[in-house]
Amino acid sequence: MNAALDALDRQHMALALRLAERGLYTTQPNPRVGCVIAQGADVVGSGWHRRAGGLHAEVFALREAAGRARGATAYVTLEPCAHHGRTPPCADALIAAGVVRVVAAIEDPFPQVSGEGFARLRAAGIAVETGLLRDAAFEINRGFFSRIQRGRPWLRLKLAQSLDGRTALHNGVSQWITGAAARADVQRWRARSSAILTAAGTACADNPRLSVRLDDAADFAPPLRIVLDARLDALAPGCHLLDGTLPTLVVHGDTVPPPPAQAGIEYLAQPLQQGRIDLPPLLQELGRRGIAELQVEAGPGLGGALFAAGLVDELLLYIAPLLLGDAALPLLQLPTLSDMAGRWPLRVVEQRQLGDDWRLLLRQASAV
Amino acid sequence: MNAALDALDRQHMALALRLAERGLYTTQPNPRVGCVIAQGADVVGSGWHRRAGGLHAEVFALREAAGRARGATAYVTLEPCAHHGRTPPCADALIAAGVVRVVAAIEDPFPQVSGEGFARLRAAGIAVETGLLRDAAFEINRGFFSRIQRGRPWLRLKLAQSLDGRTALHNGVSQWITGAAARADVQRWRARSSAILTAAGTACADNPRLSVRLDDAADFAPPLRIVLDARLDALAPGCHLLDGTLPTLVVHGDTVPPPPAQAGIEYLAQPLQQGRIDLPPLLQELGRRGIAELQVEAGPGLGGALFAAGLVDELLLYIAPLLLGDAALPLLQLPTLSDMAGRWPLRVVEQRQLGDDWRLLLRQASAV
Repeated sequence: MNAALDALDRQHMALALRLAERGLYTTQPNPRVGCVIAQGADVVGSGWHRRAGGLHAEVFALREAAGRARGATAYVTLEPCAHHGRTPPCADALIAAGVVRVVAAIEDPFPQVSGEGFARLRAAGIAVETGLLRDAAFEINRGFFSRIQRGRPWLRLKLAQSLDGRTALHNGVSQWITGAAARADVQRWRARSSAILTAAGTACADNPRLSVRLDDAADFAPPLRIVLDARLDALAPGCHLLDGTLPTLVVHGDTVPPPPAQAGIEYLAQPLQQGRIDLPPLLQELGRRGIAELQVEAGPGLGGALFAAGLVDELLLYIAPLLLGDAALPLLQLPTLSDMAGRWPLRVVEQRQLGDDWRLLLRQASAV
Repeated sequence: MNAALDALDRQHMALALRLAERGLYTTQPNPRVGCVIAQGADVVGSGWHRRAGGLHAEVFALREAAGRARGATAYVTLEPCAHHGRTPPCADALIAAGVVRVVAAIEDPFPQVSGEGFARLRAAGIAVETGLLRDAAFEINRGFFSRIQRGRPWLRLKLAQSLDGRTALHNGVSQWITGAAARADVQRWRARSSAILTAAGTACADNPRLSVRLDDAADFAPPLRIVLDARLDALAPGCHLLDGTLPTLVVHGDTVPPPPAQAGIEYLAQPLQQGRIDLPPLLQELGRRGIAELQVEAGPGLGGALFAAGLVDELLLYIAPLLLGDAALPLLQLPTLSDMAGRWPLRVVEQRQLGDDWRLLLRQASAV
């Protein structure tokens, strides 16, 4: 592959990735996928996966390309599928259309696809190259990869704090620490999540709706609301989370019986650990249920428990340039350290200013 | 003044400001001042004030310019002095050298100068313009202006914390939260300070030397070490602050008698307020003693008391990308808030990355 071709390939794949991003709020539980079909520099077809049950990116692109797909190169952000799911295999569609080369960013980890799509293409005499812009392709589907490869969702813990690390006043008041721009930004992270998890204590104190309010994107799958109420004694009937307006999962200990059925609300009994919902099995259960990106919006108790257990994949931390003082509530309740070696190092993946506030995206220092 | 002249003026003044900065570590208690003498675009002389008792910036510049000062413009970052201090008035020297125009960034607030230098120049027929790059000229001498105009030092509170706002573990361990680059940076802020203030509790727990370690700048006036010990019962004989190696001021309550004289250590009796050193009168006393920039390196008690009293002019905050948990010590002890309206808003003046850490310079949101 010469340099000019390589630059062209990158350009087409970058476009395919931007197309994939259009599905950010809608493909759940499927991955976000984009496809570009090109004859040299000319893009003859493009598409992206919109929602589960709908057509795959390749099919949209092939339809647009029609006869010009013959002899073309297809750029896909994820390995084309080889199995009959809700739609026929995309690998077969690419072969039938006469595509002669497929450039894929990353292999599909899904057991029924993994490598099989590539194998089928190669068997048909199509040149297959993989790994172009792989990191970006992985990033856009971190939740999907986590669910398939680890059996649990990619867990994002969202927090908003003052400079001195406080998330609320001692009396629980937390409206508002950050400004309007930061709060609007949170909505976008909610929108891309498969589910939003909170604790019953938070649900009672702040009474959040955990709905998504986006001015410019009506078209999204509302994330599942998940609330932990170990003994089913904290959630009060007036809680917005029990209003039945959005899909809601109430997780309780398997030692208490679920209450009578309520519209829009599912009850899930899970094992307890020291009186609290045991978190690792819960995450596995959520993975089985197709939850790819899980956003946690909770207080320092649940947030700290998840973090200390190593279950937080990334921290979405909004910091407002103000002080609230040491009587205010802490960011996370964590085990007491007596040695600096025990500290929890993080790595800043991204930082951005939002109005007067900052947004930091942090991951474990040791993580990729 | 046409645009080309204006650009030239700015260029010469910017050079004068860079020259002034060379005195950052050495002029205490005098202001940092730079001077450029130019014939059109040609710089014919330049200089800066090095240390108190030494020559003023204008004198260095005039010496270099010699005969070429005649008909030239002098750019000074501060109004030329008009009084006989340790050196003759610079205004007279500029007049004698035949300078025809003086551009000054800012008026000298010092009562014996304030406006008098300009008046003397104008009386001699010299064109005087002021205000060019005024903000930068004010910034470099914030301490000097504060001392003269408010009677107290510019107070900088230096703190280093984890992302979750913790400055030390519950057992006091704080070595090290930030990395080597941040710790080296602290030395530069110490070096530019007239004095470093701490509390006896911190002096006992961490036993700091509050000395300045700079690899590349041996030439500086070591800042005065100031330690508060209200009852003279906290500082132990083994404390580095009592080692007599650097000028040290021990501030104690006026209800206890000072101990016998010790080499290098001065004892200062001050009024108490609820058993603690009353802070506003202390700052006034430090201002009288010529302390222009005061850097506070203390724990959450003294830092919080200064902040809550509105005496902190800027926060120099180093943030390390790690968590220490809610059992660790808080950034500042502040009065308990029950309403978000009471929060303490800050304004980010500057942010910078230092290794893996950040440095934020923050001032009161309402301050200039």
